[in-house]
Amino acid sequence: MPAGGVGLVCKDPVPSDIEVSQTAVTPEHISAIAKEAGILEEELDLHGPYIGNVKLSVLERLKDAKQGNYVLVTGINPTSLGEGKSTTTIGLSQALGAHLDKKVFTNIRVPSAGPTFGVKGGASGGGYAQTIPMELFNINVPNLQISPVLAANNLIAAAIDARMYHEQTQTDEALFRRLCPNKNGTREFLPPMRKRLAKLGIDKTNPDDLTPEEASKFVRLDIDPETITWKRVVDTCDRHLRKITVGQAPSEQRGKERSTGFDIAVASECMAILALATSIRDLRERLGRIVVAYSRAGDPVTAEDLGVAGAAAVLMLDALQPSLMQTLEKTPVLVHAGPFANIAHGNSSLIADQIALKLVGEEGFVLTEAGFGADIGAEKFFNIKCRASGLKPDCAVIVATVRALKMHGGGPQVTPGKPLDRAYKEENLDLLAKGVGNLQHHVRNMNKFGVPTVCCINRFATDTDAEIDLVRQAALDAGAYDAVMANHWAEGGAGAVDLGSSVIKACADARAGKAGTGFKFLYPLEMSLRDKIQRISIEIYGASGVEFSDLANEQLDRYERLGYGNLPICVAKTHLSLSADPSKRGVPTDFTVTVREARASVGAGLILAMLGDIMTIPGLPTLPGFFNVDVTDDGQILGLF
Amino acid sequence: MPAGGVGLVCKDPVPSDIEVSQTAVTPEHISAIAKEAGILEEELDLHGPYIGNVKLSVLERLKDAKQGNYVLVTGINPTSLGEGKSTTTIGLSQALGAHLDKKVFTNIRVPSAGPTFGVKGGASGGGYAQTIPMELFNINVPNLQISPVLAANNLIAAAIDARMYHEQTQTDEALFRRLCPNKNGTREFLPPMRKRLAKLGIDKTNPDDLTPEEASKFVRLDIDPETITWKRVVDTCDRHLRKITVGQAPSEQRGKERSTGFDIAVASECMAILALATSIRDLRERLGRIVVAYSRAGDPVTAEDLGVAGAAAVLMLDALQPSLMQTLEKTPVLVHAGPFANIAHGNSSLIADQIALKLVGEEGFVLTEAGFGADIGAEKFFNIKCRASGLKPDCAVIVATVRALKMHGGGPQVTPGKPLDRAYKEENLDLLAKGVGNLQHHVRNMNKFGVPTVCCINRFATDTDAEIDLVRQAALDAGAYDAVMANHWAEGGAGAVDLGSSVIKACADARAGKAGTGFKFLYPLEMSLRDKIQRISIEIYGASGVEFSDLANEQLDRYERLGYGNLPICVAKTHLSLSADPSKRGVPTDFTVTVREARASVGAGLILAMLGDIMTIPGLPTLPGFFNVDVTDDGQILGLF
Repeated sequence: MPAGGVGLVCKDPVPSDIEVSQTAVTPEHISAIAKEAGILEEELDLHGPYIGNVKLSVLERLKDAKQGNYVLVTGINPTSLGEGKSTTTIGLSQALGAHLDKKVFTNIRVPSAGPTFGVKGGASGGGYAQTIPMELFNINVPNLQISPVLAANNLIAAAIDARMYHEQTQTDEALFRRLCPNKNGTREFLPPMRKRLAKLGIDKTNPDDLTPEEASKFVRLDIDPETITWKRVVDTCDRHLRKITVGQAPSEQRGKERSTGFDIAVASECMAILALATSIRDLRERLGRIVVAYSRAGDPVTAEDLGVAGAAAVLMLDALQPSLMQTLEKTPVLVHAGPFANIAHGNSSLIADQIALKLVGEEGFVLTEAGFGADIGAEKFFNIKCRASGLKPDCAVIVATVRALKMHGGGPQVTPGKPLDRAYKEENLDLLAKGVGNLQHHVRNMNKFGVPTVCCINRFATDTDAEIDLVRQAALDAGAYDAVMANHWAEGGAGAVDLGSSVIKACADARAGKAGTGFKFLYPLEMSLRDKIQRISIEIYGASGVEFSDLANEQLDRYERLGYGNLPICVAKTHLSLSADPSKRGVPTDFTVTVREARASVGAGLILAMLGDIMTIPGLPTLPGFFNVDVTDDGQILGLF
Repeated sequence: MPAGGVGLVCKDPVPSDIEVSQTAVTPEHISAIAKEAGILEEELDLHGPYIGNVKLSVLERLKDAKQGNYVLVTGINPTSLGEGKSTTTIGLSQALGAHLDKKVFTNIRVPSAGPTFGVKGGASGGGYAQTIPMELFNINVPNLQISPVLAANNLIAAAIDARMYHEQTQTDEALFRRLCPNKNGTREFLPPMRKRLAKLGIDKTNPDDLTPEEASKFVRLDIDPETITWKRVVDTCDRHLRKITVGQAPSEQRGKERSTGFDIAVASECMAILALATSIRDLRERLGRIVVAYSRAGDPVTAEDLGVAGAAAVLMLDALQPSLMQTLEKTPVLVHAGPFANIAHGNSSLIADQIALKLVGEEGFVLTEAGFGADIGAEKFFNIKCRASGLKPDCAVIVATVRALKMHGGGPQVTPGKPLDRAYKEENLDLLAKGVGNLQHHVRNMNKFGVPTVCCINRFATDTDAEIDLVRQAALDAGAYDAVMANHWAEGGAGAVDLGSSVIKACADARAGKAGTGFKFLYPLEMSLRDKIQRISIEIYGASGVEFSDLANEQLDRYERLGYGNLPICVAKTHLSLSADPSKRGVPTDFTVTVREARASVGAGLILAMLGDIMTIPGLPTLPGFFNVDVTDDGQILGLF
């Protein structure tokens, strides 16, 4: 890729995101991007001319290759407008690849259609720092990855209710006769049944040899409906599905109706599994380990017990391939997996990072994005994703804006769809000085992981030089490796060249032992679940202590008793504050957090701790984003933003 | 394509469908199939090496091309095991294309994952007459087509409940302020709002000019919750979603909870629209016309009123492209759209047929399948699909089996998973003679549409020659053009050469005016809705009369009052009997049918009449198909059947 860019001409003022995406450059055929990135033709499954799914065989081919520099992009606690973290990830990639002559990959999450058609709009970056074509990024890639997760999740859900129904309405004998039907005189155990028998300690292989007691244990999962944690999902902002009652048709009345709900698809444990799986085998095994409920005797009931884990893996098989796309300056992007950061672990896939690190080689760079604020997104990146992958990040980039820091300093509410207060459009060093603490807190947090931090001050047109300087100095004071203004939204990669240079230097210094103290986890897995939650809350959020509800205590006790105590923690918490209270801006002090509820994602390998009331499926506002979206007679998409 | 086949070697006994699919032949790259079929490289969007989505631009390029022979494949009322209608559609295609030197396309429906993982298994054909690779057909094509339908359907559903919620909890002023927010001093009406204003007869373009009364009418759809017909969908057999209550979370309690339910995705009106749309514009307009409910004043509330039709079209845009695959003998298959025949109109897409008819040219053949028995699938093909497309079928193939005809003659119950009674494995001319009336009834029905019929007796290994002869003679007695035994399941296209020759002859004779009486509809659109339902029931099912419930009468009156009276009828009815009672085999007489309920699919352009209790979402059996499904460490899929 030539230094100096690939001829991206930036207009002033910057047109809408979709206009830039559709008109600023002609995208390359993705085969060309793949070839340039070192992906072989037979390692790419095309999905139209601009999306290519990368096969996992590339990992086997490159297993002895050296790995590139691994850069995390994260942010301060944002306003509800977002502070350009995705945009910075893309802009930095354009700078490194198209202006600084580095091999680079940008790895980002697949966007949920919920926000796309609800409040937030697309997630392909913005302005002249975008993944293109943005309509494929926002519509087609989600269909390749989120739809299969939805299908797998909902097949598991249907399997739970159907199994309970059949157990409620049939005798042991009838269940056994149906599960092991006599075909031409013989009965057999199907593979998932053999796994269940092994779990029950029954080593018989001929169904006819089971005693009535063994047969009863075998056919009855005996799910306690009160313990079912598995919910159905949609990829739609549909608040009316938050709490529902199912099983109310006359045809189901021989069973029992049940209170349950839907989550947004990206909150599914299946999505977390997609993001953390290291191979097809690992995907399959994790899906089998999913605990959906407990039996009345207190034993975990898994997707394997339901016989549905293999089918779930088949549904998700192709989604395990990262989707290759391109930026406006023709650098490669891997879009893969999309768990939300507030209600899930918030990182793109482990497998995409592994692939990209091999492809860029020792001197190359892989940028990977952690969702929302660094207190949740980056913390989970380090403690969950890096632990699962064994990969060590070389550098962290924290994205901050003058706007958000002013808000942390006490500025007026920032609300989507409403005009910005003048405090955000005029120089206000006083407000800003009161707010920079939020950035400083995140810088100090990064240092606790031993990783050098480059702060990116994502420039808005109204920011003054004095304001930029103030933020820069505050970041350095807190121990940042560097702090750099960037203007990629308006200028593309050319606007992030300084940022890119700083990241290159930080990585080199980190490798040479001259920056950071060496990557380390915040907690060892051997700590108790409560201690781990406490350490995160105190060290990262700045809480003075943690309270646990009776329900949470009971659940955590159960998880430790069942042997899940050594799993890492995934906190569900608002992204708008370091605390669990979205209204507390800046650096809240003297607060405690309360773990309302815990959940074991045994397949993903996480214990979820819910701080406060976390909505696991958003709603639609009065004027949802979809009102703007339309298609012309010749298929051009309008109004994605 | 060379006469004599492409080297398919058939084993005896025939291995499992997935084994045949994975091992019998090496599939061609789909680009080669496309090229051979006359599709240009730029008209194909690849989805991996074996699926290619055909762009609609091919229709523009070939708009002056002559059209090929149009052959409908349908069947008698089947047993619950199915009688090989899909298999015959594929086998006949292999015969025509690989053995009889004809240009041919086979157009079939995309399979729902519900049955794939539930009872029925895949739908790619069977034995040596299959669409391959069958795992892509059963997993990936549904994700390309059904997942977007699901997403569009559920976005519309969320829009309904969200809109009601916001209207319930806000004043006119607040609603107006949010729908037309003040941005930099100006307010504007978005495009869907302008359509709503036009519908209300308000011709103002500046939001500030509306009177309070006009603003109130504009912001309040005032949906009567009792009239909502739009349901959410999943593509999963999940019986516990048949009837549910939504909106029970505390966050929704300012609104009202509501009883509703889920359908299987293929029953969605969005799927019917996908199957009937003739262009992107037509897709968009049909989605806008969808009536989801009525206002308290009795006016229809549409997806356009909700502002969601454009977004739904964007979600479904790529699904409007038929997916090109191949048979075991390398003939082209278009897989597109998949409405069930019992609860929807049961035909693959109109657009795929249009494309294929142009591509094969005047001397070529397009086989298109109508779901389930000819009493529902074919009747809807003629009266709904051919009316929407303006295409005229040249010939109908009715698939029958000795097994099913024996069942119609009074043979014992045939149940999936249970061994077949010996009546079906040994010669029993008596039982068969009593049952052939079902086939004869369907032949006479086809003649009412003026189309010559070739009966295909789909041979099972246990059928005797005397049995085949009996069926053959019965078909001819009833006025079939021909009746031919075929054995494609065991022999591939070579087993259906006689059938193929007969179809070629029937089409030639039909074109020459020597077979059939010329295609005609069963009813004109101008008839009243009740008269149309009566004509179908009496002429096609053989009913002596039709009863209408009070609810149905009220609904049909409303639809005629609203101007929907000239839409064609789509009957929802069991496929297992000519009557509405699945237990009535053979040719039931002296029965009436009852229209329990009607529904207006204004977007699809259909009035649904529900005969009896039609399940619109199936359930999972005690031993669902998914128990067999798994994936190996290297990604090979096992156990699809």
